[in-house]
Amino acid sequence: MPGNTFGRLFRITTWGESHGPALGAVIDGCPPGVPLTAEDIQHDLERRRPGKALTSPRREPDRVEILSGVFQGVTTGTPISLVVTNRDVRSGDYDELAAVYRPGHADRTYEQKYGIRDWRGGGRSSARETVARVAAGAVARKFLGRHDISVKAYTLALGGVRCKHFDWVEIDRNALFCPDAEIAQAMAARLREVREAGDSIGGIVEICARGCPAGLGEPVFDKLDARLAAALMSIGAVKGVEIGEGFNAAAMLGSENNDPVTLEGYGANHAGGVLGGLSTGMEIIVRVAVKPIPSISKPQLTVTTEGQPVTIQIKGRHDVSAIPRIVPVCEAMVLLVLADFWLHPHPKVTLSS
Amino acid sequence: MPGNTFGRLFRITTWGESHGPALGAVIDGCPPGVPLTAEDIQHDLERRRPGKALTSPRREPDRVEILSGVFQGVTTGTPISLVVTNRDVRSGDYDELAAVYRPGHADRTYEQKYGIRDWRGGGRSSARETVARVAAGAVARKFLGRHDISVKAYTLALGGVRCKHFDWVEIDRNALFCPDAEIAQAMAARLREVREAGDSIGGIVEICARGCPAGLGEPVFDKLDARLAAALMSIGAVKGVEIGEGFNAAAMLGSENNDPVTLEGYGANHAGGVLGGLSTGMEIIVRVAVKPIPSISKPQLTVTTEGQPVTIQIKGRHDVSAIPRIVPVCEAMVLLVLADFWLHPHPKVTLSS
Amino acid sequence: MPGNTFGRLFRITTWGESHGPALGAVIDGCPPGVPLTAEDIQHDLERRRPGKALTSPRREPDRVEILSGVFQGVTTGTPISLVVTNRDVRSGDYDELAAVYRPGHADRTYEQKYGIRDWRGGGRSSARETVARVAAGAVARKFLGRHDISVKAYTLALGGVRCKHFDWVEIDRNALFCPDAEIAQAMAARLREVREAGDSIGGIVEICARGCPAGLGEPVFDKLDARLAAALMSIGAVKGVEIGEGFNAAAMLGSENNDPVTLEGYGANHAGGVLGGLSTGMEIIVRVAVKPIPSISKPQLTVTTEGQPVTIQIKGRHDVSAIPRIVPVCEAMVLLVLADFWLHPHPKVTLSS
Amino acid sequence: MPGNTFGRLFRITTWGESHGPALGAVIDGCPPGVPLTAEDIQHDLERRRPGKALTSPRREPDRVEILSGVFQGVTTGTPISLVVTNRDVRSGDYDELAAVYRPGHADRTYEQKYGIRDWRGGGRSSARETVARVAAGAVARKFLGRHDISVKAYTLALGGVRCKHFDWVEIDRNALFCPDAEIAQAMAARLREVREAGDSIGGIVEICARGCPAGLGEPVFDKLDARLAAALMSIGAVKGVEIGEGFNAAAMLGSENNDPVTLEGYGANHAGGVLGGLSTGMEIIVRVAVKPIPSISKPQLTVTTEGQPVTIQIKGRHDVSAIPRIVPVCEAMVLLVLADFWLHPHPKVTLSS
Repeated sequence: MPGNTFGRLFRITTWGESHGPALGAVIDGCPPGVPLTAEDIQHDLERRRPGKALTSPRREPDRVEILSGVFQGVTTGTPISLVVTNRDVRSGDYDELAAVYRPGHADRTYEQKYGIRDWRGGGRSSARETVARVAAGAVARKFLGRHDISVKAYTLALGGVRCKHFDWVEIDRNALFCPDAEIAQAMAARLREVREAGDSIGGIVEICARGCPAGLGEPVFDKLDARLAAALMSIGAVKGVEIGEGFNAAAMLGSENNDPVTLEGYGANHAGGVLGGLSTGMEIIVRVAVKPIPSISKPQLTVTTEGQPVTIQIKGRHDVSAIPRIVPVCEAMVLLVLADFWLHPHPKVTLSS
Repeated sequence: MPGNTFGRLFRITTWGESHGPALGAVIDGCPPGVPLTAEDIQHDLERRRPGKALTSPRREPDRVEILSGVFQGVTTGTPISLVVTNRDVRSGDYDELAAVYRPGHADRTYEQKYGIRDWRGGGRSSARETVARVAAGAVARKFLGRHDISVKAYTLALGGVRCKHFDWVEIDRNALFCPDAEIAQAMAARLREVREAGDSIGGIVEICARGCPAGLGEPVFDKLDARLAAALMSIGAVKGVEIGEGFNAAAMLGSENNDPVTLEGYGANHAGGVLGGLSTGMEIIVRVAVKPIPSISKPQLTVTTEGQPVTIQIKGRHDVSAIPRIVPVCEAMVLLVLADFWLHPHPKVTLSS
Repeated sequence: MPGNTFGRLFRITTWGESHGPALGAVIDGCPPGVPLTAEDIQHDLERRRPGKALTSPRREPDRVEILSGVFQGVTTGTPISLVVTNRDVRSGDYDELAAVYRPGHADRTYEQKYGIRDWRGGGRSSARETVARVAAGAVARKFLGRHDISVKAYTLALGGVRCKHFDWVEIDRNALFCPDAEIAQAMAARLREVREAGDSIGGIVEICARGCPAGLGEPVFDKLDARLAAALMSIGAVKGVEIGEGFNAAAMLGSENNDPVTLEGYGANHAGGVLGGLSTGMEIIVRVAVKPIPSISKPQLTVTTEGQPVTIQIKGRHDVSAIPRIVPVCEAMVLLVLADFWLHPHPKVTLSS
Repeated sequence: MPGNTFGRLFRITTWGESHGPALGAVIDGCPPGVPLTAEDIQHDLERRRPGKALTSPRREPDRVEILSGVFQGVTTGTPISLVVTNRDVRSGDYDELAAVYRPGHADRTYEQKYGIRDWRGGGRSSARETVARVAAGAVARKFLGRHDISVKAYTLALGGVRCKHFDWVEIDRNALFCPDAEIAQAMAARLREVREAGDSIGGIVEICARGCPAGLGEPVFDKLDARLAAALMSIGAVKGVEIGEGFNAAAMLGSENNDPVTLEGYGANHAGGVLGGLSTGMEIIVRVAVKPIPSISKPQLTVTTEGQPVTIQIKGRHDVSAIPRIVPVCEAMVLLVLADFWLHPHPKVTLSS
């Protein structure tokens, strides 16, 4: 099946190219009665925008419009169509890329699959595609908020610079969504360094969901962790996903990794809030590995669409790291997974809008 | 939607409990004309069986029957029903677990979700469920083999013991599917040690797919890596999935991580065979983190179904590690993802059965 | 997607050929806590069996087994696997049909699509496939019964013989499920007449669902009537489906066809219980047109698989009419649609198992 | 699952309310390389517009925009977003309907399901929703045209006035898409008569698809006829669907209804181009029953949202019959079904864009 739809009961379909007229999302299955305004969505879109020139020199004054599904300020249960017009479209920047495949990008794989590609800024494979995810995620956030479920993502590492302390309120105080104020400054310094070198850098983002009742998820293939993994791995720059202890668990003993069961919950959360593919009621903890952005100014070996080996240096405006812009995208994907499972029939979970 | 179906065009539905009468899979969408016998499937099931008493003292003489979809030795395009009867069912071993939640297992989350659970050996959440996956994967293997696509999984690490060398032919020579003969012995020693301690241990499995043409996968949510992540994370003991460099990429520079584009393919494979969610034509490389098996003989704190705190020691026959039994399960899931995408419409990929 | 799965939240996957080892269904999504025994299902299977030699000389002692999903007499929320072994398999009867296409059957279209076909009794395209539907429908009936929803089908017409009176209790008193005792005799006479002529005959079946709350269905493509139409049209012999007034409505005036809205419901039910694709709370009334069974003893023109024109006369045991065996199949399909929609999120409908 | 998506491989998601800012469709899965302009779609939208004041006094200058998925005049394989802005929005006409349920409409069922409804012109349940279907169908038509598949719908009956002759070229010569010039005049007279009476009228539309290869469709639940039935029954005013002989078949003998098999195809087409749920290669013939439009000027009994019985007379601009506007909608739905099945894997059908 074509891959631009995500979710089953809270379902989104996204569309749009980096340099086309607009991008958007249709949200189908959002329950009726949820108060929703363009400002609710705008707030999340702003968090995705390049902050303080740390990582991106671009300005994208994204404005979202709600074209359906909301009447007198609340959702009606019909599909919600969101559109964001592309305003900052200087496709001329990309003209010279029409005839060459950028390393690390999907330029050649798209052409191999489709026989054609919109080469302006990566077209559909551009990170700009995530605007629609964030907009849709904002609707999921409004819905889940009514059930006291919240999702927060933050930067654990940028390149080799890793957080040492964790301060929940610090996350929104710095442009990198980093929970460690001191490390946030070191990360910013690292970013400048990498930019000056004409290179790019990756990092690690952690996502924490709070307030989920036990029992969300659907065994055996649509386990909560399986769906979270798909949701997060579908973000362009993500190369790894882990739940709870994740890869650490590979070297642990059962007696270390098992969480004691208590009356109120669990005596630890090595599991990351998921057992047997179902939420346990504890915090859901997921981490993703973000690769360095493939667009760099340094010379790279590649070939032209005509088959000539060439050296390219990518010009134009490009980010140095997918962090921090990817942080609200990760939040959005987790929100969408949870909203979807919330709507699945749960004999033991009280369903209401 | 209920979660026991996987795939869209090559689609499997699995069923069965650990200690019920049988387990099975229905494969819908397998193209016609594929030669298929019970022996083809049996071969993969044998690889999943506990080998040489290294990890499991149990004997499960699983025999598969094909009940439909094959006529005169070849598939007909109609659903293929596979059934494996449970023979080694001593549910008495589990009687005392009816009233207590085992730490690290899905006992309580199933009960929280469904209000009822088949407590005999974990019921549906037992690792025995993977028998059906392996059986279905064997059918995918037969189909993909006709297109020269092959998938091989192997053990990279068991606990803290990691491979140092990689010898492709060694994989099938030792009971742990380990590509390093010397390390395989160290792993076996580690397993004995852990068993004697009444504990369990995890590890890392890598899966390599060869022969995939470029262009498999469906942007933007059903990317090849997103589907692989979901497929592998849906295996009970898996807590992390990474593609290519995976979590390493988080600390790499773009200039290190980007694979140079060449006429024949790519000058490196940091990407793990996937760019923009589409296969590149290079080997597809995925790794999973396997947690230690939660059933251990050591005393653990938990509660009874009546809400009384208790200490339990799990008796009966249980594995010390999900490795090596999980290795063919990982293969099966990757085979199923590839068979599915192979059948998706690909204008540039020649489709035939 | 392959077509052997029906439903989304109450979902069945069926498999099996007419003369293979067995047929079956996997029901995924049945809520936990529903009491279920093989006898419950057996009861519906018996209604599908040829009664009193009126239409079919065959005896099929179908016995269903439940292989999973039921523990201690109740469903657990995991997939329910049902298997019916084929006992009365005299495929020798069909040997001579391996090389010829029977008119009105799917022999040639299957071969055109798949390049191969199981010619024994029609293989997958045999009406015997509906055994699995009826078995699955019986599970839906048990589930819906807990919510006071019931479904009943009956024969309105057989050939040109149509009911004149409607007596609800008469339906189960005659072998044709006909609500008019006198007409039932006329129908039986017509059947004998047609059999003697070596021909076959069609009819009209009506299905009535009672107890559905208002609001079942999902606009705009998954309307209740759209799903019912798909469900019923997917039965082999069905060539038409209509809701409420159906084709009569084409010649009616709006002032005749509109149902007055009252406080308690509606002053009439021309709509057949569906408005805007949603149930109204009134009885849901659907009718299907059943074509005459294509297997007849009269000589017919056709071609061999080698391309030679021939005249064939179909021998062996075959029904004279799909009625009455199709009646419980129609019930099953409507039950499956309603069970599925019942589980969809409904803000105004109280959900519980 | 929410119901605003149709199709699996050629998949559309529609959105929009009658009196909201816009309506639209996202088409996901259209193969790359199909030339597509807004004019292609506009052409089909024009056919849906009220013609010559025969049935509707409204003017809707619908203009479609393509916001994604097309680059340099051809489709790219990415989602195609189509938007039609609502220009003729006088919701004031509907103010008085906020507090009352119109008979024959979905006003009350929507409110019962969702607890809220956009009462302006019926909101999502308005026939205006079909604008998005026709726009999406136009894309399917372009795609199928490349494979020489065409679909044509026409009016067989309007009220009691039925065609007697069939002239293929006449269909596009009259405003009612009627293949019988003389009857077209009688139908127009009947429409005037009904309008003067303040009433409305239904009819029968037939759809004919030509050029389909044998083997389209997916047994056993996604048969071609089952999907066509769902597609057509999902149109608001449709109350019945039949294939080939349809309800006539109920009174026919097998010897009359069976189509002789010939080398080139079939000696007749009682089956309507479908056997065993698969296309036969003959013309696919489907008919739908269209109910009279529920909005009439005559007084009708109903209740207010507060539960008071009242008599209403619907004012404002409303059609007298869904015919002829429903004719291109029927075409669109059949086109969408065929485009979808064309993309399904078919070992014997050559797949290319």
